[in-house]
Amino acid sequence: MSKILLAHGSGGKLMHNLIEQEILKRFANPFLSPLADSAVFSIGKQKFAFTTDSYVVKPIFFPGGDIGKLAIYGTVNDLSMVGAEPLYLSCGVILEEGLETEILDKILASMEAAGKNANVKIVTGDTKVVEKNSADKIFINTAGVGIIKNNRVLSTDRIRKGDKIIINGSIGDHGIAVMSERMKLKVTFSLKSDCAPLWSLVEKILGVSNGAKFMRDPTRGGLATTLNEIVARTNLGILIREEDIPVKDEVKGISELLGLDPLYVANEGKAVIVVSPEAAEKVLRVMKKDKLGKESRIIGEIVETPEKVILKTLIGGHRIVDMLTGEQLPRIC
Amino acid sequence: MSKILLAHGSGGKLMHNLIEQEILKRFANPFLSPLADSAVFSIGKQKFAFTTDSYVVKPIFFPGGDIGKLAIYGTVNDLSMVGAEPLYLSCGVILEEGLETEILDKILASMEAAGKNANVKIVTGDTKVVEKNSADKIFINTAGVGIIKNNRVLSTDRIRKGDKIIINGSIGDHGIAVMSERMKLKVTFSLKSDCAPLWSLVEKILGVSNGAKFMRDPTRGGLATTLNEIVARTNLGILIREEDIPVKDEVKGISELLGLDPLYVANEGKAVIVVSPEAAEKVLRVMKKDKLGKESRIIGEIVETPEKVILKTLIGGHRIVDMLTGEQLPRIC
Repeated sequence: MSKILLAHGSGGKLMHNLIEQEILKRFANPFLSPLADSAVFSIGKQKFAFTTDSYVVKPIFFPGGDIGKLAIYGTVNDLSMVGAEPLYLSCGVILEEGLETEILDKILASMEAAGKNANVKIVTGDTKVVEKNSADKIFINTAGVGIIKNNRVLSTDRIRKGDKIIINGSIGDHGIAVMSERMKLKVTFSLKSDCAPLWSLVEKILGVSNGAKFMRDPTRGGLATTLNEIVARTNLGILIREEDIPVKDEVKGISELLGLDPLYVANEGKAVIVVSPEAAEKVLRVMKKDKLGKESRIIGEIVETPEKVILKTLIGGHRIVDMLTGEQLPRIC
Repeated sequence: MSKILLAHGSGGKLMHNLIEQEILKRFANPFLSPLADSAVFSIGKQKFAFTTDSYVVKPIFFPGGDIGKLAIYGTVNDLSMVGAEPLYLSCGVILEEGLETEILDKILASMEAAGKNANVKIVTGDTKVVEKNSADKIFINTAGVGIIKNNRVLSTDRIRKGDKIIINGSIGDHGIAVMSERMKLKVTFSLKSDCAPLWSLVEKILGVSNGAKFMRDPTRGGLATTLNEIVARTNLGILIREEDIPVKDEVKGISELLGLDPLYVANEGKAVIVVSPEAAEKVLRVMKKDKLGKESRIIGEIVETPEKVILKTLIGGHRIVDMLTGEQLPRIC
């Protein structure tokens, strides 16, 4: 009898199979089927976005954030990625019996601060408690509702050969910060999760140009997974250049130590933006002026063939960057 | 150091304290603070409802339902209780490593059928997997968005002395069905969870009269908790008559066996409706014609004092029905 593996939650191939074979088979509808970061629908003349994520990150506190902050910003970002201004959030918590109320209080305080910072309101919630060892401290689900103005459409359907791929900074910070904390690595370093709300950056991009065609935040499965998802939906290829992809030295170092590839490591404050070649420089300029976009870079472009993600390596070779197989980093968000 | 207890999730006093002292302290806003079944807000000219619940019921399959069906209908009902037509649902699942995929498939099939039956679409979702013993098989969160037509307002603010209290059938079926399954009680009986979607019943009620002022589905903590919540928000009292409250013989029997009071046992297909005295008979008539309202009854009324829930017992005495203290039935939904 087949069983659920940790890899089914990794963001990689097994998870995509599960979603495509089990979930879409049953629930396919025009809102769910694009598998965008948020569902987009209209009521009357107004376009809305609606999204959800459950957070099971371990440990619940890590450099640069905690499960509460992550639960707010993660859902804010999923709304932002379809061009929706985040407005209202729901919050469902599942608590393990015996959790210190002081810890809960710290997490709630963090959610409060994050909500204020991202300018969203938690308007509805739910609390469940399960017996000791039936959950791990605390799991948080947030869902979010946002509005899409000016009939904006951010969709893989708009992507064409020659489009540029931009990222707003270094990759792998979140995943490596969480793993270092989990493994209590005895290294002293300043690396923090990049956990941040992306709406204000996105709003600026959308304000200067309609040339931004598609966005996705490369969380579970990292940049490599996001790019492979684009390839799968467009039947186009992607060429990225290793020399242009920002990776911090600490992330490189710990990744080597742990046998990880930063391309597959989760981010929580990054956006991959596919933009028309004409608009690329303009978008890049406005991004660099935002505090979350200072390190923005064009890292590659959309090509016609092969229908794969190809990395041009530092030494000039080319390698295929496939979708993640197996479980690289469980419970990273 | 104080710790989270199972009772913090029971729907009773400790949970209310947690919500009022920890949650509202931080997150108070006009949408959350009424603590209605759903938050209600307007965007443009359209009124919306938004709600969430996490489901941790144990066992995940029980007579009359399963965790998937519950997750769909529970959120449908929370929207219905504020007069909103349920439209779109999100679904976040947390899976325990090692769960048989066959079980997941059965639950997904049940959610598919429930979604069709309740005429709602799951438009966005998320899947996480945690290690064995870090969760108990499967937890499901659903959030829902609905629309409120004709500027309807269902609120405790509208409740006045003399208003009638109606319930659409027998109490305690869900909680006792789940407990019987959990404890593998060796009794043969036909009792099933009342798990059902209430929107079509609610729509009929709202269609015949504006006299329905407030609705709540008495889930965790049961009828007693819902009535106490009304008392707390209105500063009015409630008088209910034991002879008018429908309780099935099996529910009475098992409750006695387990030392439970059906007034505190969870329901998943019931609505408590507060209605003006003039509209009561009309509302009752339309309810009785619906398949989910055949057993509808007026069970009591709003009184001025005392500001408590008072039960007139079968033998003619009166007793105070307080809010649930301690944990009666953990993981009932």
